[in-house]
Amino acid sequence: MKVEGRNAVAELLKSGKRVDKILVKGDGDNTLYQIVKLAKQKGVNVHFVKNEALNRESITQRHQGIIAICDDYDYCLVSDILNYAKGKEEPPFIVILDGIEDPHNFGSIIRVAECMGVHGIIFGKNRACSVNETVLKTSAGAANYMHIAKVTNINQEIEELKKQGVWVYACELGGEDINKSRLDGDIAVVIGGEGKGVSQLTKKLCDGIVTIPMKGKVNSLNASVAAGISLWEVSKRR
Amino acid sequence: MKVEGRNAVAELLKSGKRVDKILVKGDGDNTLYQIVKLAKQKGVNVHFVKNEALNRESITQRHQGIIAICDDYDYCLVSDILNYAKGKEEPPFIVILDGIEDPHNFGSIIRVAECMGVHGIIFGKNRACSVNETVLKTSAGAANYMHIAKVTNINQEIEELKKQGVWVYACELGGEDINKSRLDGDIAVVIGGEGKGVSQLTKKLCDGIVTIPMKGKVNSLNASVAAGISLWEVSKRR
Repeated sequence: MKVEGRNAVAELLKSGKRVDKILVKGDGDNTLYQIVKLAKQKGVNVHFVKNEALNRESITQRHQGIIAICDDYDYCLVSDILNYAKGKEEPPFIVILDGIEDPHNFGSIIRVAECMGVHGIIFGKNRACSVNETVLKTSAGAANYMHIAKVTNINQEIEELKKQGVWVYACELGGEDINKSRLDGDIAVVIGGEGKGVSQLTKKLCDGIVTIPMKGKVNSLNASVAAGISLWEVSKRR
Repeated sequence: MKVEGRNAVAELLKSGKRVDKILVKGDGDNTLYQIVKLAKQKGVNVHFVKNEALNRESITQRHQGIIAICDDYDYCLVSDILNYAKGKEEPPFIVILDGIEDPHNFGSIIRVAECMGVHGIIFGKNRACSVNETVLKTSAGAANYMHIAKVTNINQEIEELKKQGVWVYACELGGEDINKSRLDGDIAVVIGGEGKGVSQLTKKLCDGIVTIPMKGKVNSLNASVAAGISLWEVSKRR
């Protein structure tokens, strides 16, 4: 697959993942030169090409003068996420996505999750966006450091997590004020898709519903902003 | 200008702003029918058209079967924002955008600002995105309720606000932990543009810099997510 854009390619290189080659604009600026330097240090082939060639190769059409060619995104298992938390001697902090369809939202959620110390993200293969070029670009490289599990059915995974002692909370309207929720310990936060929110069945499975109190007239947040605020609140209490 | 998409058009109608006419898909579903009903209640002309006609008219290409034609976005003055806060007997809560270029980020910031009780948004006319069709769509209609001032120079406005007793904080890396900042009283929060952040000169003018502490490796947030978390923190302390 292709990783496009300056931040995304730089973070891909830093992450140590295998990169086949890098295509970069021949008449680039200093920022591009720094990434090329990093690629050479890592022993990655660098090809200088014309901007038109990058436009042809680009899937997102926002390549910023650089595209890396690498293996497809490497999903993990839910158990990998739990083991990763265990290895860090931290109570698990997991995000579950219920039907996020917009790759920009998905990428943005990965980005804020990485910043807030989330151990892994779980999403269902149906009705949802996979980790594609746009998601990688929007995540600004955070997807390279995040454990992401693509599962058949998030509800089954929620039941399994609960058996293992993880408290699962849906972030939705009509629940408990997030300021008053405990949100510490082993925790998973479910973020609903654009428009539809968390599905009824999934909500029923959750241990609780937490709500971001709002003061306006519209009172609906973009999925990645809602995720940002709720993950921030959990992160603060850990 | 055009307002596109279901939420955006519904909120436009509810806001009471003048709408010239509405173009709607002839074979629409119940959600579209509800918006048509609302339009008729408000005395707005409704034209049923084919989906292809909507595709032709659409600027965002995400019209969801409905487009409203209305006057251009009506900017306000900075004094209108201060008067609006005064009228509500609340200490002013203002957002200043320093070079946000992505209309999705701009729309998303308007949306979260409205939810968090912000009285108005100020942005500079240079190096920035104006309130266009994509911004309106992404704001999910929140732009209709938000006072937005387009100014020649945000630094002049910052100086003026400070004279009027407003504390101005930049949300940026390298400042005081936002958890430890006071952030109450008359306040304006400056959000920097994608990639560049808050400019040096603007930062110098601010009364302080607040930072969202992060735990990851990438540690850079999308502008609208960073805005979401910082406005949420201010909102909580008011």
